[in-house]
Amino acid sequence: MTMDVLGYAAQSAETPLAPYQFTRRNPRTDNVVIDILFCGVCHSDLHSARDDWGGTQYPLVPGHEIIGRVASVGPRVTRFKAGDLVGVGCMVDSCQHCAACGKGLEQYCEEVATFTYGGADRHDGMPTFGGYSERIVVTEKFVLRIPDNLDQAGAAPLLCAGITTWSPLRHWKVGPGSKVAVVGLGGLGHMALKLAKALGAEVTLFTRSPSKEEDARRLGADHVVLSTDEGQMQAVQSRFDLIVDTVPNVHDLNPYIPTLVLDGTLVLVGYLGPLEPALGSVPMIMGRKAVAGSLIGGIPETQEMLDFCGAHGITSDIELTPIQGIEDAYARMNKSDVKYRFVIDMASLKA
Amino acid sequence: MTMDVLGYAAQSAETPLAPYQFTRRNPRTDNVVIDILFCGVCHSDLHSARDDWGGTQYPLVPGHEIIGRVASVGPRVTRFKAGDLVGVGCMVDSCQHCAACGKGLEQYCEEVATFTYGGADRHDGMPTFGGYSERIVVTEKFVLRIPDNLDQAGAAPLLCAGITTWSPLRHWKVGPGSKVAVVGLGGLGHMALKLAKALGAEVTLFTRSPSKEEDARRLGADHVVLSTDEGQMQAVQSRFDLIVDTVPNVHDLNPYIPTLVLDGTLVLVGYLGPLEPALGSVPMIMGRKAVAGSLIGGIPETQEMLDFCGAHGITSDIELTPIQGIEDAYARMNKSDVKYRFVIDMASLKA
Ligand SMILES: [Zn+2]
Ligand SMILES: [Zn+2]
Ligand SMILES: [Zn+2]
Ligand SMILES: [Zn+2]
Repeated sequence: MTMDVLGYAAQSAETPLAPYQFTRRNPRTDNVVIDILFCGVCHSDLHSARDDWGGTQYPLVPGHEIIGRVASVGPRVTRFKAGDLVGVGCMVDSCQHCAACGKGLEQYCEEVATFTYGGADRHDGMPTFGGYSERIVVTEKFVLRIPDNLDQAGAAPLLCAGITTWSPLRHWKVGPGSKVAVVGLGGLGHMALKLAKALGAEVTLFTRSPSKEEDARRLGADHVVLSTDEGQMQAVQSRFDLIVDTVPNVHDLNPYIPTLVLDGTLVLVGYLGPLEPALGSVPMIMGRKAVAGSLIGGIPETQEMLDFCGAHGITSDIELTPIQGIEDAYARMNKSDVKYRFVIDMASLKA
Repeated sequence: MTMDVLGYAAQSAETPLAPYQFTRRNPRTDNVVIDILFCGVCHSDLHSARDDWGGTQYPLVPGHEIIGRVASVGPRVTRFKAGDLVGVGCMVDSCQHCAACGKGLEQYCEEVATFTYGGADRHDGMPTFGGYSERIVVTEKFVLRIPDNLDQAGAAPLLCAGITTWSPLRHWKVGPGSKVAVVGLGGLGHMALKLAKALGAEVTLFTRSPSKEEDARRLGADHVVLSTDEGQMQAVQSRFDLIVDTVPNVHDLNPYIPTLVLDGTLVLVGYLGPLEPALGSVPMIMGRKAVAGSLIGGIPETQEMLDFCGAHGITSDIELTPIQGIEDAYARMNKSDVKYRFVIDMASLKA
């Protein structure tokens, strides 16, 4: 048995997103049915819709920053009931028996997590469709509680942009006394500033745009360093314990490595591709410095981040858009013309 | 006051090493005077002699894998007396007050350690000359005890090749249960195999030469993987906690990253230069994997390594050469035609 759901889908890499009627499974015993209220717009949505990474299966219903209310629950669901405010992020399932899943790091599941859209359900093989839709059905374990005090639309981007920056901040033990730098001020970068600051770190933004300074300080940056200014870069040599690099495009990492302390790490969270120009090993060797990558975050740490955001009143800075404006939102996002995340008001779907 | 010392020096990048008479300072109150018995031949000696990295000051007396006997000590020296068997590695001094020095990581001294050759003494500004010589004068703190049970010539390479591989093995907490891979089987690589094995790890050698398998197993490798064999590489995906990459030349790191486990690290200890072809970020992000660098090791961990080698009877596999054969040794080293380290018998200097 299935249910009919209305959403917005890309039918090919060349066509704009448009209304699309599809079916979702009826809930299994451990499933939660969620009426979607808001869905954030992630760069991955656009890359997938346009098949930038190859392998997109059409039709594609994007969206993995989902806020909604529980409509109903399967009989074995214990943590949620109808009416609860919940969230769904980038994953809706995983193998649940590998070492990574055992550590609550489902994003690194050895059998590959089931992603919220563009994947296939592990049980019935049906394609997964994302949050640009009325309703979604998700295994209880992958449903997150959303603190009631948070703005619902502003909370949506926490499910991807928030956890993607939270996970490395926590993994590399950022807290009071830490010096953290963030490269890039977009959807990910602005969350990194907020979260690092709330964790008690001294926070610096690296940017190429002097115009971003005021906003960066409002978002939590203690310092703003123009990465194009030799003198400013020189002044922060051997400064940072962790650099969270959120830039989604190819860019030179070499200027940042000398700004790490001994044993410091630059972690890439936004860029998938070759590190060009080539990274030089000398500054890494001379200070036992590392370049690492980090992928979103696990379910337990996502809940931890949401609870932290509830306690600290943290949400994303957003622009609300109706689903009918999604192509305009993509176009503006491509120009970095958004402060700092588009969120779709899913009520617009019925308009 | 100074003392006259005979050594071998390069007078320029183009001329072979030849006998050279120079002066060393008389010992300061905290100095140890060491009669040199053996000196290992490191790739850095050759690179510095030929000015491959630029900045070499001539005349250059190379050598930083020094084994000798204490001839005399200054009045404030407490840990050594005449007749003691001692070693000197890559450093002879450091600032002693920065954070790195405070942690016993003098190789990362924020004011730059004083290197054993090609540097300048921090107190009198005199050039430092290395171990291709009769005698050396070293601050007590940078003198190491050599376990009496070890072959003296075979112990020399522990001072650079040994500590360079020991330091990352210890920093990344290799022990029983760890899976370690070593890339490259030369002076550094053969020490990495011995030390990782003695630390209790399961050890794999990556090599491009099937001919190295037998020797690798003798040196401690549990497995040998031909890095040119697609099937063998496939079989070790997601296998290693740590990869110690000892290759001194530019080489592609991309085939190795997928062989790391979640949170695994590939550490570069032998190659200074751009990482070409470009490292791809995807496999790093998909498993929170890191590429890092590591430089020799600090004085406390060097002593720890020497004591460990004493307890486990570990020395380097060496070929002994008279100082008069140094240019031949360099030529063979350049062809990787040595198993696995040349060591100069300094008695030959008086021949
Ligand atoms: Zn996303
Ligand atoms: Zn799993
Ligand atoms: Zn060396
Ligand atoms: Zn220091």
